[in-house]
Amino acid sequence: MATTEGFDSPALGEPYLLTPGPLTTSFAVKQAMLRDWGSWDGDFRAMTADLRRRLLALTGDAKAEFDCVPIQGSGTFCVEAMLGSFVPRDGKVLVLANGAYGLRAAQIMQYLGRAHTLIDKGDYLPPRGEEVAAALDADPAITHVIAIHCETSSGILNPVAEISRAVYASGRKLLVDSMSAFGAIPLDVNEIRYEAMVSSANKCIEGVPGFGFVIARKSELEAAKGRSHSLSLDVHAQWATMEKTGQWRFTPPTHVVAAFLEALRAHEAEGGVAARGARYLKNRDVMVAGMRQLGFETLLSERWLSPIIVTFFCPAHANFSFQRFYELMKDKGFVIYPGKLTVVESFRIGCIGRMNEDVMRRVVEAARQSLSQMDVSDAAPPRAALDERAKLAA
Amino acid sequence: MATTEGFDSPALGEPYLLTPGPLTTSFAVKQAMLRDWGSWDGDFRAMTADLRRRLLALTGDAKAEFDCVPIQGSGTFCVEAMLGSFVPRDGKVLVLANGAYGLRAAQIMQYLGRAHTLIDKGDYLPPRGEEVAAALDADPAITHVIAIHCETSSGILNPVAEISRAVYASGRKLLVDSMSAFGAIPLDVNEIRYEAMVSSANKCIEGVPGFGFVIARKSELEAAKGRSHSLSLDVHAQWATMEKTGQWRFTPPTHVVAAFLEALRAHEAEGGVAARGARYLKNRDVMVAGMRQLGFETLLSERWLSPIIVTFFCPAHANFSFQRFYELMKDKGFVIYPGKLTVVESFRIGCIGRMNEDVMRRVVEAARQSLSQMDVSDAAPPRAALDERAKLAA
Ligand SMILES: Cc1ncc(COP(=O)(O)O)c(C=O)c1O
Ligand SMILES: Cc1ncc(COP(=O)(O)O)c(C=O)c1O
Repeated sequence: MATTEGFDSPALGEPYLLTPGPLTTSFAVKQAMLRDWGSWDGDFRAMTADLRRRLLALTGDAKAEFDCVPIQGSGTFCVEAMLGSFVPRDGKVLVLANGAYGLRAAQIMQYLGRAHTLIDKGDYLPPRGEEVAAALDADPAITHVIAIHCETSSGILNPVAEISRAVYASGRKLLVDSMSAFGAIPLDVNEIRYEAMVSSANKCIEGVPGFGFVIARKSELEAAKGRSHSLSLDVHAQWATMEKTGQWRFTPPTHVVAAFLEALRAHEAEGGVAARGARYLKNRDVMVAGMRQLGFETLLSERWLSPIIVTFFCPAHANFSFQRFYELMKDKGFVIYPGKLTVVESFRIGCIGRMNEDVMRRVVEAARQSLSQMDVSDAAPPRAALDERAKLAA
Repeated sequence: MATTEGFDSPALGEPYLLTPGPLTTSFAVKQAMLRDWGSWDGDFRAMTADLRRRLLALTGDAKAEFDCVPIQGSGTFCVEAMLGSFVPRDGKVLVLANGAYGLRAAQIMQYLGRAHTLIDKGDYLPPRGEEVAAALDADPAITHVIAIHCETSSGILNPVAEISRAVYASGRKLLVDSMSAFGAIPLDVNEIRYEAMVSSANKCIEGVPGFGFVIARKSELEAAKGRSHSLSLDVHAQWATMEKTGQWRFTPPTHVVAAFLEALRAHEAEGGVAARGARYLKNRDVMVAGMRQLGFETLLSERWLSPIIVTFFCPAHANFSFQRFYELMKDKGFVIYPGKLTVVESFRIGCIGRMNEDVMRRVVEAARQSLSQMDVSDAAPPRAALDERAKLAA
């Protein structure tokens, strides 16, 4: 099974995906897709029940106050389903944004035509507890706050614990987009209060893409009846059908579900959230240390770096081109990811997926060779990048 | 590859799925999922382009007036995306329903809060051209009509050609849910006029579930801007991003896409829509003839039977139980499907998927044995079933 399988190289000599998902999965996960299931059949219903139970267990919900509702589609579909189902039509949402995924939540509220307001911290600066508290004090109409756990567009780990305290201190409700963090970074219901969170199959659990899931307080699931703007994305209706029949309302991605169950078993065998998070942290530390030795600089200081994905500034050197660097890295077996900063050029390297520190050492070596092939003698970023970074004091 | 591969038995001794999807796929299709792709990478973008081109080719769109937009999620997500994107907020839809999927389209309109009206023909009676014409004459506010190509809940093949003529004769627009028909039953834009249609990966193209697709007139895609009620299901936005970047807006189900491309190649190698339809027709004819010999009766007469899935009445015999029959058939390697008629008990047997007439003969033999194990000497339906059937004159 996956945990004893080596980390040496993906199947068929394909490149490692140093991306925030779809990511490199184990061969065992993919092999689980080599058969067909009838979605109405009891065998598949048992798989759905197992999946829901295993996901719930990762939240530490000992009092059975929460339930898990898988939803077809990509992660964004789940974010939209969560907002459309848990925010009443006359509710108002405070969106905490410091990157693309926070802004996407605001865009969803726009589509929904429900009231919302935005704290936009720009490309990466974290929303802090005090400013959330101040915003909530200033606007009693706000009923819900949505926070991004790891804002994947910069790789920052947002301070959800302090945000949660501010939200509940002023009697509002918290929704969390934990897409890229859940399964590797604790989001224990006993430690951090929230009403609902979402994540997807192809992130830290290391499954393949095709569905996501909402984990929500049962009282919120009950209250969500009749609220959704969309049949497909109605969390209450999906939940009610699953509870009653054990089935998904509409055709589930059966193969992706089977792969995800295999991934959940490997996650447990590895040691659960703590062990998964520890491996990613080690991946990140080895990779970041190596890249810094080559002269690359990270956007974020240690305090804010997540073990999920890391943003590096592109070198100032005239010979550096991201497109060229991407191709050279890919030739060496590593697919990296473009950056999303609006102010300066950047790229990202993910630490999640079926990879360990040995792989990360090879990533660094590939980066060294690629720089040398491009005749980039110095990977230091431009002055503007360092000025940008100075905005976020440790 | 798939076409030379035998039809003898699915991999790993799993049962055949005689269901309307997820269905039995070839091993080659599933094997295509044994690697990971980066969704941002050029290799995957090329796969997406190939997929869109191949699907469009199946519509005979020689004048390049149409485009293909894949959408994450199940087929229902595509029906909802189509209705939310092509029906203006002040439009009005006539829904033609004769089963669960027609009613689902009406339910979607309810969620959208956009005007609609329903011709509900009950469990299976087909909506005919004249009554569509009359309804359109009577209500000038109607802008769009949605028809179900094969209404999978009974297996009836609805008369979309005559419906289309009625729609355009009175200057309205047609949308088609061709979920379970596309790829096996022609929906050629030169023969049948429509603005948009939807289908999904796990039906007659014989892929695995995880996404669907909209094929729409480009002028309608342009006009759809800003209309959708949902970010995730906004067909215009998905199309615009794909045209600009070659990427899906949100994480695509990469493995399912790879499997679908393999399925599309096998579809072409088999001889396209005509050959696929001919195989399914043969499957149906062999299976229906055999079942009738055992005493089973079909809901529909030949004129209306689709080559997709067939509804049989449950025998009147006191020893017959569908649950028992289901288990006995499954023990023999065949997963059948429950019926959806509201008036009398029924079950369904699908003819689509990686199966041929030899397999269908074994299905009939398994049904014979199962009846005998249940001590059902006579598979004739109850009187009420025959009365029900008499409603639909050939
Ligand atoms: C924090 C966060 N939210 C939302 C999403 C959107 O997920 P998807 O691309 O699956 O729609 C992502 C994807 O990386 C993410 O990292
Ligand atoms: C005609 C028709 N429409 C819609 C659907 C819904 O598709 P899904 O179950 O993938 O949401 C189906 C599924 O069988 C169908 O046959």
